[in-house]
Amino acid sequence: MTRRVITYTGVMARWQTGAQDRLEQAALALFLEQGFSETTVPQIAARAGLTTRTFFRYFADKREVLFGGDESVPALVQHMLAQAPPEVRPVSLIVSQLASFAETVFGHRHQVLGIRHQIIRTDQGLRERELQKKATLKAAIVDGFVQRGTDELTATLAADLAMMVLGTALARWLTSDGSAPLSTAVAQVLAAFRTLASEVEWTTIP
Amino acid sequence: MTRRVITYTGVMARWQTGAQDRLEQAALALFLEQGFSETTVPQIAARAGLTTRTFFRYFADKREVLFGGDESVPALVQHMLAQAPPEVRPVSLIVSQLASFAETVFGHRHQVLGIRHQIIRTDQGLRERELQKKATLKAAIVDGFVQRGTDELTATLAADLAMMVLGTALARWLTSDGSAPLSTAVAQVLAAFRTLASEVEWTTIP
Repeated sequence: MTRRVITYTGVMARWQTGAQDRLEQAALALFLEQGFSETTVPQIAARAGLTTRTFFRYFADKREVLFGGDESVPALVQHMLAQAPPEVRPVSLIVSQLASFAETVFGHRHQVLGIRHQIIRTDQGLRERELQKKATLKAAIVDGFVQRGTDELTATLAADLAMMVLGTALARWLTSDGSAPLSTAVAQVLAAFRTLASEVEWTTIP
Repeated sequence: MTRRVITYTGVMARWQTGAQDRLEQAALALFLEQGFSETTVPQIAARAGLTTRTFFRYFADKREVLFGGDESVPALVQHMLAQAPPEVRPVSLIVSQLASFAETVFGHRHQVLGIRHQIIRTDQGLRERELQKKATLKAAIVDGFVQRGTDELTATLAADLAMMVLGTALARWLTSDGSAPLSTAVAQVLAAFRTLASEVEWTTIP
């Protein structure tokens, strides 16, 4: 029974991924070729060799081709923060978890994310949506730290730090050829930040 | 000769500030009362008891009431970074200069900035303009550090750090009653960040 369900789910997942991937690839190609605002859902479906009805089985609208799946990321972050031993301090948590988190969420999508980034830059509504997404993720990180007993200000700065390291690492990785993993870019940025931050220790705040 | 020019400039500046302040106050009041998009330049001029022609002597359009003056900030930052002794490291520079910089640029405008922040939140075009402004400021900081010989990655992280401390301090100060100066908020955020950052030292990056 269990085996049959697993097999069935596996087949379903492959089939779904197939259609979803084809729709995503068709959409990205059309967005690049003719612009985001000029592209319609029927065009995307036709390019993927699927129906409009199938499109709407996976995406609420064409914008969600670019943002779909992202809504699960804040919950994943909060889960990671809740699971970590309570004595681990915020920066230690960021340093120890960020590379594997980034690898899990983004690491397998170098080409698609690069194209996605290019498309988002061209459209004000998309840029706004991207910022909302980042704000939601940051709020989830702040909340995750506050739930661990971190004060609000420290939680805010820790979240900013995580977003800044992740954003810088992603930008470097997406402009590279992608042969080195994202986790390496995260480690490089963290190392540069550690050097930078170590200077704060011996500086007197006025 | 020099004395006369200075005196004349002084008088001009006072006169200009009078009309400009009246226009700014009228515009902010109208933006709050009836919304940014519903407010026209003739309405602003009428509320200030001035002509539309006078309005355009100070502002290119109604949006520039909210953003005018900001264009000089990146150059100010670059000047500060260029003036500092070459041996001063990025974080030391941020720690030693940020409070006085923030105080100079924003410290005397608690009420206006609070209203401005409220208005910008309501309009997508204004939010976008605000982000452009922040991106320009960040790029100026990165460039200023690179000019001092800082490598690009460290310069980017230092700029992010400065923006993050400034942004957090401004948010805290603008939601306070403004009785404590902005420089105190900057010092508090820097102190919290120092504590947070000191944890990086003893954490091994994977």
